Amino acid sequence: MPAYKAPLRDVRFLMNEVFDYPAHFKTLSNGENADPDTIDMILEGAADYCENVLSPLYQSGDDEGCHFENGEVRTPKGYKEAYDQFVQGGWQGLSYPEEFGGQGLPMSLNLIKSEMMGTANWAFTMYPGLSMGCMNTILQFGSEEQKNTYMPHLVAGTWSGTMCLTEPQCGTDLGQVKTKAEAQADGTYKLTGTKIFISAGEHDLTENIVHIVLARLPDAPPGTRGISLFIVPKFLPTVDGGVGERNTVNCGSIEHKMGIKASATAVLNFDGATAYLIGEINKGLHAMFTFMNTARIGTAVQGIAHAELSYQGSLPYAKERMSMRALSGKKDPDKVADAIIHHADVRRMLLTQKAIAEGGRAMIYHAAQLADKMTDALLVGDQAKYEEYDDKLGFYTPILKGFLTELGLEAANNGVQVFGGHGYIKEWGMEQIVRDARIATLYEGTTGVQALDLIGRKVLLSSKGKVVRDYTAEILKFCGRHARNKYLRRFAWDLTKLCAQWNTLTVRIMLAARKDRDIVSSASMDYLMFSGYVMMAYFWAQQAVIASEKLEAGDGKETAEFYKAKIKVADFYFERLLPRTQGHAESMVNPSRSLMALPSEHFSFDY
Amino acid sequence: MPAYKAPLRDVRFLMNEVFDYPAHFKTLSNGENADPDTIDMILEGAADYCENVLSPLYQSGDDEGCHFENGEVRTPKGYKEAYDQFVQGGWQGLSYPEEFGGQGLPMSLNLIKSEMMGTANWAFTMYPGLSMGCMNTILQFGSEEQKNTYMPHLVAGTWSGTMCLTEPQCGTDLGQVKTKAEAQADGTYKLTGTKIFISAGEHDLTENIVHIVLARLPDAPPGTRGISLFIVPKFLPTVDGGVGERNTVNCGSIEHKMGIKASATAVLNFDGATAYLIGEINKGLHAMFTFMNTARIGTAVQGIAHAELSYQGSLPYAKERMSMRALSGKKDPDKVADAIIHHADVRRMLLTQKAIAEGGRAMIYHAAQLADKMTDALLVGDQAKYEEYDDKLGFYTPILKGFLTELGLEAANNGVQVFGGHGYIKEWGMEQIVRDARIATLYEGTTGVQALDLIGRKVLLSSKGKVVRDYTAEILKFCGRHARNKYLRRFAWDLTKLCAQWNTLTVRIMLAARKDRDIVSSASMDYLMFSGYVMMAYFWAQQAVIASEKLEAGDGKETAEFYKAKIKVADFYFERLLPRTQGHAESMVNPSRSLMALPSEHFSFDY
Repeated sequence: MPAYKAPLRDVRFLMNEVFDYPAHFKTLSNGENADPDTIDMILEGAADYCENVLSPLYQSGDDEGCHFENGEVRTPKGYKEAYDQFVQGGWQGLSYPEEFGGQGLPMSLNLIKSEMMGTANWAFTMYPGLSMGCMNTILQFGSEEQKNTYMPHLVAGTWSGTMCLTEPQCGTDLGQVKTKAEAQADGTYKLTGTKIFISAGEHDLTENIVHIVLARLPDAPPGTRGISLFIVPKFLPTVDGGVGERNTVNCGSIEHKMGIKASATAVLNFDGATAYLIGEINKGLHAMFTFMNTARIGTAVQGIAHAELSYQGSLPYAKERMSMRALSGKKDPDKVADAIIHHADVRRMLLTQKAIAEGGRAMIYHAAQLADKMTDALLVGDQAKYEEYDDKLGFYTPILKGFLTELGLEAANNGVQVFGGHGYIKEWGMEQIVRDARIATLYEGTTGVQALDLIGRKVLLSSKGKVVRDYTAEILKFCGRHARNKYLRRFAWDLTKLCAQWNTLTVRIMLAARKDRDIVSSASMDYLMFSGYVMMAYFWAQQAVIASEKLEAGDGKETAEFYKAKIKVADFYFERLLPRTQGHAESMVNPSRSLMALPSEHFSFDY
Repeated sequence: MPAYKAPLRDVRFLMNEVFDYPAHFKTLSNGENADPDTIDMILEGAADYCENVLSPLYQSGDDEGCHFENGEVRTPKGYKEAYDQFVQGGWQGLSYPEEFGGQGLPMSLNLIKSEMMGTANWAFTMYPGLSMGCMNTILQFGSEEQKNTYMPHLVAGTWSGTMCLTEPQCGTDLGQVKTKAEAQADGTYKLTGTKIFISAGEHDLTENIVHIVLARLPDAPPGTRGISLFIVPKFLPTVDGGVGERNTVNCGSIEHKMGIKASATAVLNFDGATAYLIGEINKGLHAMFTFMNTARIGTAVQGIAHAELSYQGSLPYAKERMSMRALSGKKDPDKVADAIIHHADVRRMLLTQKAIAEGGRAMIYHAAQLADKMTDALLVGDQAKYEEYDDKLGFYTPILKGFLTELGLEAANNGVQVFGGHGYIKEWGMEQIVRDARIATLYEGTTGVQALDLIGRKVLLSSKGKVVRDYTAEILKFCGRHARNKYLRRFAWDLTKLCAQWNTLTVRIMLAARKDRDIVSSASMDYLMFSGYVMMAYFWAQQAVIASEKLEAGDGKETAEFYKAKIKVADFYFERLLPRTQGHAESMVNPSRSLMALPSEHFSFDY
């Protein structure tokens, strides 16, 4: 089984060399505490916790799973102790306000920490992860009293939180939510209904669980405009901030899932449960959308987490396993056969994993800076700036979430494939990564939902293609700067062509959509993947630029090989993965007819 | 959970309309018994058995799995009864000689039956499936005595068989086999060693298990030229053909796997086990290669099986699940939302599943005719003809096995994706299909092994590209015939271009390989996929031709919609899946440098 090792060399390359995080932090109102020593302490501390506490529980947690009995959920052996250490380390409060006991550091550090934790043990990470959604909601929309009641416990991690959106009949289409909230004389509400797929909805890690619930008042308008947001704690808080009476929200069962088995996915029954309105009546869905970007980027991390972990599993195996001889001649002449890492096709699989993990990490680390800036604008109350960065992040979000989780699943499958038949055996731990990765393209909006959000909402509806024109202009500026660099010439040329193609495709679809409205959906998936490959190419080119500069400067000679490797992987990406854009480009411009022409009842004549 | 329904309309379309099986059977020496009535009886009987016996055990078998205790394996509840019905139905002997109790029908019918059984319950189907490998070996290489001893029991199905190739240190590279065989004074051998990944290696379904084992004599030359083949029965046969003394081959454990959990995968320890040489000394691997094509096509079936089953699961869900509104306007105006089958991107996923299942089925049904002709040449002793069809099949085999199993996995993943989050929940049965499908790209030679077999052995080494020239010539002839058919004009045009491109790519790689030997491996995967997409396009075009002829002839008016649907799905395939060829084409022609340049020790600087 792959034992997680935090990729700190790569993390530091991105933070210090590519994206200059130290300078970035200085621009933030809450950046002063994020000095290099603190960051180092956080990276080393997180690495230690992830490698030595979370990683060893990865496979055992999957084997054991969560157990449900009499309304209670028992997490796997060791999870409670690991969670206690998480609380003691103060990890939950890293990027939350000091007034509630947090460390008040920029949000990006939280994301970087989450990537490490998620790679070591994604299922575990979902417990504190869901709390963040809950905390963000209370922080932005809660009353002072609500903040003071819940935030200290949540920031400490002694209480956890959930987001209760999905119901049996609806997930994506939240306008169909049926859960009812009835106002009481004392200003509280009674909530009745069933929520499903509630991650961390019930467990034994914390004293209390604070549910954020979407529900509908009796006189609410139908659809998405009639949904309000409520806080429903498992135990009602006492006046002195402790844990009081048990509320009537109960776990009816937990799901048996393909993977992330150590993460409890609960069915929650609200049976006249005491609920507190948070934010404005009927503005619940709007509030949810506020966090959609950050929540989705949190899920996008899963793409690189599973690419990284599966690479950490398959790389040593590829170096050890001996089979056949390399086509260009013996590489391990003294051995019975060559290690399979010498076969080009095995290298293709490994380099694909590596290109996805490191290319995706760069994309996430850049988005994390945008999230910092957006959060900072909120903190200092600069609405215009907030909207600017929210828009920027809004363009990245569907690409990061949709594209990276699809590629993460591919990388995880490559990890199994490198192992051959052994990859299929539980003991090696590689198949678990595929099972765990499989959820990432489904929750927080399926890939199809991301694709439609990208082309429909972000590109066509809100900006008539401007967002792509702006983004490609940025890439082209970059290309112009590096057109003469010997390493980068071909990257710049490929990127330039692809930027032109991206705009052309956008315009073609925009024009076609005037007559063929379904084309927006029929083209969406290809458009998402095309956009993702081009964007990742840009981030590989950026890494190659820094690497080549370091090499030319003779800087960091002892790690020259690290920089050379970056350029070689960028080469691989441009030659082997980027050409996939052309299949997507050719497919997306076709009218929607070939998808829409077949009547539903003729999809099968046998069943 | 998807309840299997045999797609008999599609099966009959292929057998009677596209490939004219009745005429084909008349050309075979053993085809006379395969009259239309017999075929109908087989199809209906197999459908009934698969739908009512095997399909209900699909999910329960996965939940329960196989259990190992004291060297014995207990298959899941109901498997023994289902197997007994299989034996009683005479299904194992369908295509095996009448002299051993079989029905002596053409091999293709066996494959068609296997597809149904495998779609209903792949894990179950592996028990009788492995027996076929064993029977084929004994039939072709066994002595008269060996045939008479084993074949009647194996043909009846009361005994089962295995193929014992893999050892812990080697799978693909069988030259590394270590299992030792020592000759005894009585002409038998004592076999010692460990074999792993032995499907159906131990179970409770049959009275006896007949292992075909690769092993090495003490004085054998090293590598692949020193491997002999042995029969090692679990119980030694008595002189009157019954079950005698227990042999010293024991099951050490069974694997815990990602999927196909109802299929027992055994570690077998041979501890001086009594073994009988089969075939010539040191020619064991050569004998194995004889069956490679048929065994691999048997596995290729898994690609279409899982595409079909997941489609059968996701299609009804897509018709029932209501979410959002179609972009081109309300489709179910009276409902709270439109059924998701009205969304273009959901249709893309469904049509992809359908195009893979039906396109792949056509490819398999054509290959099955080649297998019939090859087997027939063997039966009538026509060596030249045998080699001709063996070569033809040898070209199809890696494409069918490599390409169809990769696409089957994609289709199974689409099935989960159509269900959204529900697809991840065991109860629905969709995630099981992904787990079961995942093995198909690994065993019987990984996709990488198929890819290298195709480009290295079949295209470059044995034929210097001739096999592609011949095959594309066949396609071009077809295109010429249909260039003026209004439905087919664009298919013919696309195919014509792709045939030219296939040849060009072949030549480019052949030339490049003179200096860059690793390019054969670095291009292999892209080449395999490119070849697969073009081949499947040809088979979709063939189906569209027949459909359009039937439509124009006004033939079978009551099913005109069936023919129209065929043409529409062909349209979808050409517009949406076939463009993927272009990404593969662009990637494969790059030199191997971007794959080979990174030194093994620089694949990571963190671990």
